[in-house]
Amino acid sequence: MTKFVYLFNEGSKDMRSLLGGKGANLAEMTNIGLPVPFGFTVTTEACNKYYEDGGALSDDIVEEIFKNMKELERISGKTFGSTEDPLLVSVRSGAVFSMPGMMDTILNLGLNDDAVKGLAKLTDNERFAYDSYRRFIQMFGDVVMEIPKTKFDKIFDGKKEAKGVQYDVELDTKDLQEIIADYKVLVKEEMGREFPQDPKDQLMEAVKAVFRSWNNDRAILYRKLNDIPGDLGTAVNVQSMVFGNMGDTSGTGVAFTRDAADGTNALFGEFLVNAQGEDVVAGVRTPQPIAEMKEAFPEVYQQFVKIADLLEKHYKDMQDMEFTVERNKLYMLQTRNGKRTATAAVKIAVDMVDEGLIDKKTAVSRIEPAQIDQLLHPMFDKAELEAATPVTTGLPASPGAAAGKIYFNAADASAAAEDGSKAVLVRLETSPEDLAGMVAAEGILTARGGKTSHAAVVARGMGKCCVSGAQAIKVDEDAKTLTIGDTVLKEGDYISLDGSTGNVYTGEIKTVPPTLSGDFGTIMEWADEIRKLDVRTNADNPRDARQAVEFGAQGIGLCRTEHMFFDEERIPYIRRMIMSDSEEERREALANLLPFQKADFKGIYEVMEDRPVTIRLLDPPLHEFVPHTEEEMKQVSDQFNIPMEKLEKKAEELAEFNPMLGHRGCRLAVTYPEIAEMQTEAILMAAIELKKEKNMDITPEIMVPLVGHVNELKDVKATIENTAKKVFEKEGITLDYKVGTMIEIPRAALTADQIAEEAEFFSFGTNDLTQMTFGFSRDDTGKIIEEYRDKNIFAEDPFQTLDQTGVGKLVEYAVEKGKAARPNIKLGICGEHGGDPKTVEYCSNIGLNYVSCSPFRVPIARLAAAQAVVKAEQK
Amino acid sequence: MTKFVYLFNEGSKDMRSLLGGKGANLAEMTNIGLPVPFGFTVTTEACNKYYEDGGALSDDIVEEIFKNMKELERISGKTFGSTEDPLLVSVRSGAVFSMPGMMDTILNLGLNDDAVKGLAKLTDNERFAYDSYRRFIQMFGDVVMEIPKTKFDKIFDGKKEAKGVQYDVELDTKDLQEIIADYKVLVKEEMGREFPQDPKDQLMEAVKAVFRSWNNDRAILYRKLNDIPGDLGTAVNVQSMVFGNMGDTSGTGVAFTRDAADGTNALFGEFLVNAQGEDVVAGVRTPQPIAEMKEAFPEVYQQFVKIADLLEKHYKDMQDMEFTVERNKLYMLQTRNGKRTATAAVKIAVDMVDEGLIDKKTAVSRIEPAQIDQLLHPMFDKAELEAATPVTTGLPASPGAAAGKIYFNAADASAAAEDGSKAVLVRLETSPEDLAGMVAAEGILTARGGKTSHAAVVARGMGKCCVSGAQAIKVDEDAKTLTIGDTVLKEGDYISLDGSTGNVYTGEIKTVPPTLSGDFGTIMEWADEIRKLDVRTNADNPRDARQAVEFGAQGIGLCRTEHMFFDEERIPYIRRMIMSDSEEERREALANLLPFQKADFKGIYEVMEDRPVTIRLLDPPLHEFVPHTEEEMKQVSDQFNIPMEKLEKKAEELAEFNPMLGHRGCRLAVTYPEIAEMQTEAILMAAIELKKEKNMDITPEIMVPLVGHVNELKDVKATIENTAKKVFEKEGITLDYKVGTMIEIPRAALTADQIAEEAEFFSFGTNDLTQMTFGFSRDDTGKIIEEYRDKNIFAEDPFQTLDQTGVGKLVEYAVEKGKAARPNIKLGICGEHGGDPKTVEYCSNIGLNYVSCSPFRVPIARLAAAQAVVKAEQK
Repeated sequence: MTKFVYLFNEGSKDMRSLLGGKGANLAEMTNIGLPVPFGFTVTTEACNKYYEDGGALSDDIVEEIFKNMKELERISGKTFGSTEDPLLVSVRSGAVFSMPGMMDTILNLGLNDDAVKGLAKLTDNERFAYDSYRRFIQMFGDVVMEIPKTKFDKIFDGKKEAKGVQYDVELDTKDLQEIIADYKVLVKEEMGREFPQDPKDQLMEAVKAVFRSWNNDRAILYRKLNDIPGDLGTAVNVQSMVFGNMGDTSGTGVAFTRDAADGTNALFGEFLVNAQGEDVVAGVRTPQPIAEMKEAFPEVYQQFVKIADLLEKHYKDMQDMEFTVERNKLYMLQTRNGKRTATAAVKIAVDMVDEGLIDKKTAVSRIEPAQIDQLLHPMFDKAELEAATPVTTGLPASPGAAAGKIYFNAADASAAAEDGSKAVLVRLETSPEDLAGMVAAEGILTARGGKTSHAAVVARGMGKCCVSGAQAIKVDEDAKTLTIGDTVLKEGDYISLDGSTGNVYTGEIKTVPPTLSGDFGTIMEWADEIRKLDVRTNADNPRDARQAVEFGAQGIGLCRTEHMFFDEERIPYIRRMIMSDSEEERREALANLLPFQKADFKGIYEVMEDRPVTIRLLDPPLHEFVPHTEEEMKQVSDQFNIPMEKLEKKAEELAEFNPMLGHRGCRLAVTYPEIAEMQTEAILMAAIELKKEKNMDITPEIMVPLVGHVNELKDVKATIENTAKKVFEKEGITLDYKVGTMIEIPRAALTADQIAEEAEFFSFGTNDLTQMTFGFSRDDTGKIIEEYRDKNIFAEDPFQTLDQTGVGKLVEYAVEKGKAARPNIKLGICGEHGGDPKTVEYCSNIGLNYVSCSPFRVPIARLAAAQAVVKAEQK
Repeated sequence: MTKFVYLFNEGSKDMRSLLGGKGANLAEMTNIGLPVPFGFTVTTEACNKYYEDGGALSDDIVEEIFKNMKELERISGKTFGSTEDPLLVSVRSGAVFSMPGMMDTILNLGLNDDAVKGLAKLTDNERFAYDSYRRFIQMFGDVVMEIPKTKFDKIFDGKKEAKGVQYDVELDTKDLQEIIADYKVLVKEEMGREFPQDPKDQLMEAVKAVFRSWNNDRAILYRKLNDIPGDLGTAVNVQSMVFGNMGDTSGTGVAFTRDAADGTNALFGEFLVNAQGEDVVAGVRTPQPIAEMKEAFPEVYQQFVKIADLLEKHYKDMQDMEFTVERNKLYMLQTRNGKRTATAAVKIAVDMVDEGLIDKKTAVSRIEPAQIDQLLHPMFDKAELEAATPVTTGLPASPGAAAGKIYFNAADASAAAEDGSKAVLVRLETSPEDLAGMVAAEGILTARGGKTSHAAVVARGMGKCCVSGAQAIKVDEDAKTLTIGDTVLKEGDYISLDGSTGNVYTGEIKTVPPTLSGDFGTIMEWADEIRKLDVRTNADNPRDARQAVEFGAQGIGLCRTEHMFFDEERIPYIRRMIMSDSEEERREALANLLPFQKADFKGIYEVMEDRPVTIRLLDPPLHEFVPHTEEEMKQVSDQFNIPMEKLEKKAEELAEFNPMLGHRGCRLAVTYPEIAEMQTEAILMAAIELKKEKNMDITPEIMVPLVGHVNELKDVKATIENTAKKVFEKEGITLDYKVGTMIEIPRAALTADQIAEEAEFFSFGTNDLTQMTFGFSRDDTGKIIEEYRDKNIFAEDPFQTLDQTGVGKLVEYAVEKGKAARPNIKLGICGEHGGDPKTVEYCSNIGLNYVSCSPFRVPIARLAAAQAVVKAEQK
């Protein structure tokens, strides 16, 4: 029979997938002798069984839970449901991958109208007992019964207002009792039944609620954003309560062994006296820095420092810990590898190598490739920043710079971002409901909450600039105003945030791109030592090429020539060309485009120097260039003296039902060879001129797109070769050049052996290959894919991460057949997948020579390529 | 070194691919001792080398040709280029597959101004010598120099007119000399040079012209129509001349060992006294039936009958022979397996089995599957035919019935057919230039030419009705009038032709579909005994289903449910459904569609009885049903009270860039499960009602389209199963049903093992699979594919014949993986390829269980499936 429940002393940190991260680490801490309140974990398998059983807890699971509750009673000496010495428990979710703020927690479970009296008597602390009970009803009502949290807040805040106090701690026992009475009325109204008094019912409902919460919207969104499969399930941790809210000798806190924002090697965190766990994270009061605990609880502090150090050495990684102090006694409630900014991740990794804690390969593996995106994104322009004066300063919660228009709720921020505005989300404090708005915003500003508040943790995870706990600002979310001193900002006004200093500025400060240096440079150097895969870039102009080279690109894997045609000066000629009736007219228009293209290629070659440059011949359906507006039509009509009717007829002719599968790619070069001739001439002449002018040796790689049949490639290759022959004869210079092809049509992959006979290189165009292998048009199926991910039909978006099961089969087949036919064939990938870390790992594993990605993803790909090697060695 | 030239005694009938059909059979006849004028064959490899060398004859080929000319001189005792006893030769093309009328022939080569005199003296027949010379200049001028034939005709006809004679034989030597003089002036004018006098030059130019003609437009068109690869090349046969134009003891003819129109076992053919080969085929004079040769040349006739019999027994097939009689001596110029109508093919095959000449398997293999299409196409309605009186009768040149508007040239007929009219092509006589018009026309009527004329031969090959040699009609091609007695018909007037009787009717006679019986029925029975593959049909309604069952369909492989929605009564509801905002509205609209669908399925089940019926769930992009016109919009707006603006907005929302890759297929069922629910209910309820009403046991096969990921199938299957459960519970009846899927997305093929876990059957949707594997939209790439075929990039249209190299790899992979995962999985194909004989063979070879095709292709598929087995056994 499957074992669905593990006591903490039965588990270990290696049982994450079964016990979830939290459960595994609670077990580990228990086993290495740390002070952990005892408890047990209901496994992720139980969660999956719950879903298989249509949302029901089977008898065997229920039985096992209560069997283990007995054990908990035995160890604690308390009795679950007792009115005298009640065993109270917390019920917490714990997924395999940490999902902060996504899943739900219930504390103080086991209390009821009678037990609260027993607890008061036993602890001799009435206020504590009723505070615990009101918290329990509130959390249970919110999480299990799904009564809107705001309804509880309204009662609670109403009481504070009536009493004229600011903080919860200022309420007395009577206030709390009245609040409890109101809460119970609310529950009755909302649910049509009383608040459950039987602790066993409470526990079963709570466990089911945790399981249910695995599939709440926030959890699904978080998983989607973080590519976490939807079928892992969550574990549930049931643990004896310890209380941080038992007065001034009690408290609760969270801490990191190093600074999660910048990586400084020092204990970092916050605590609140007389509070329960959620208070710190939710930011209801602004907490004290951890260092101040030294004075408040000197012995506890010393013990905590030791434990923190021990945990970091044990896990060989920076730890994020939760603890509670109950009447001067320390309890560890959680430890996990801490989330951190990219800056911190890089510094911590390099420091830990210096400290001898980890080796270079481990260090390189410690950086989340997607995260270093943060380091590559804009900072404030120095000059503008120096000229600006901050209007206030909050906590530097997540580094980076952001400037944009302010919006006061998630929906407005999302809408503004969709309309193309840069949005800054301004909130009193954020909660998981704000997630979509945080994703859409450039940066986040909150009035309340510390550096471990929801806003701060989530923003850091996203690599998004965040200033939290800016106490000097007043946020009126209803009136949509932000008041800083005398300044009143309204929705749509500009603001600028510096997440690294916490400074807030009115107006818009210019941002500039960052550079690779310091610890980051060190990590990238180590990555380059380790990786086997080359990293090239997709670039269509010298500016992008230069940026990519700065980021370490080793060549251009994809230079799209069609982007060059959209320039105002040029587009009339391409329009002229596609509107032509005869080859002669087309040639005339092409002759006008030749100098532009040649100049483009020269510019790119000059930047890339001796690095390889792969240039793709014209690819998109011609009708993309068709003039769409009356005005554009008229311009072409006037400039080239073509009657409007003729243009309109031609535009109609060029229209296609499925342009993605139409007259594009090499089909253009086959049917209009003169286009390929012009492009070949431009590609070669640019190289010849640089040879003559600067004695540069360029070896252009000419790439034929959308080949599905070897004969297409043969045909276009003949055009290229004939053109090259003519150019070389005319110029009296012969250059080396290569001709290769995209593998982006399934048939090309399936006949890669034939194609490799003609192609010196393959570049996998995984965008189109994915479209055709799935039969999914990227332009049309965004919504469907979203729905598919919600329904767990797709674990990942196949346009972001290469589908290894299906599309990968074609890629691997083509690699095998291509190498068999031409052992020295160059193999690369130039779809957008080239910058996706998982795909980079895959490309490294199947033996490609390079990946090519957008300039800003080059460092990510370099890192991912190194991690691929490390991971492969560990297998 | 490659041998490029073979003397006739060096070859055999098994060397077709090297020597071409004509060359191989000339060699064979030479070797079995028949009277064949000696000669040699320049190989197809020489032709391919000619093209490789950019259209030049290499020195080694030239040298080898003249070496063999020496041998010809030695054997004939004549000298090439001699002015006294000149060796004259014919130069004829000879491709691997017979291409009648497509390639070009030159006779009497070796003549010049001096040699003609020698020939006259030697033969003591001046008229003959000059007739031969004028023919030579005319053919050489036309074929080699590409001077329009009409210019020669004009001179020749002008002379006849001036002399007041009707036939060429009525011209005397002087007339012919004058014609020759005029011809030479014409050549000088057109070419700017004299007619070549050196026989060696003549020979080289002629050989090159034959090679060149391999790629003339007519040859390309013919190959395209007949799926003959463009890279085979043609051989050239150079043969000592014998002369049928040496007076009344000479003649020329063509004959078949059996009647090529109806298969009667009797010598059948035509001959012309005092004529050269081309005269019979071109129909310049109406020839005499072969039987009349018995009187004209009694001894020669006896010898010819013996040879014909010998050849048929030697080749074990009906022979098509050309012969010449020179001064009472018989020479065989060609034999080949004769083309025949489907009716003749069937009768000959069955007769030859009865005669013990061939076995059943050979008989079945003798019928061209595509050809039997003819037997399945309309004949005249008996009642209407009996009521009609023919206005004239021509030769029954190619059977079948045709009715349509008359057009007088190929271009007009093609244009009319493109506009959707039925066209009948009426010509004095046809020539290869008319090919496109013949393809477009329903039938062909000519005033001149026999049953072996160009019109007759080509029409029979196409399975097209043809009445030739209708001497009583007058055709004025310029005035575009057809006069029959007093009746004058103009372009666009209706006419009806009976190709089986030769009768011509004015007006339009109704046509009816044919049935399978007699010899055809016998052949189909034999085919059914032999084949392993089942043949199902694609049918969406009882009428098609009934037709298919009559043609031997063993089930329905594809019932498309969307076609059922386009009915006037129904389309408003489907429009209502797709315009809905909510599931509820959709369900309401679907509830209205349910009774229609149920009735459809009941009707089909009743026809199919116990044969399996596979029903595909809704497949096409929803926006196909979107109202397009203002009027349609308004109708929906009024009927369902939806504001126009809302409809317009919705229509816009539904528009897709690439609908082929958009929201369609199972994606509809995943996102709108209520559609699949309604369809499942209709499918099952129809079966349940038939069980209750007629105790019929139907096992519906529900097919989920466009699956790319196993989870899509799982999702839709759950919807189907849940619906089935509900229906069965409600009705108190449980039925067997199957759930399977189309394999039409490349990814489905690549993950067939996973999909087979869920699918009880696979049906390969090779239309979509081809589109996506090639990245070719069928709607957009027609022109490109045509150009690809012209350029030999594609040997075949992949939408007609399955691409075994690429798409086939996916099919084979899916078959292998599908069977591994589910050994008893049913495998079929339901794309349009299912009726293509080559594809049927392929499907049989890779072990599919069935093919499914349109009703009219069912007999073709049955035959092709049998041939596949025979062919596989021969390997």
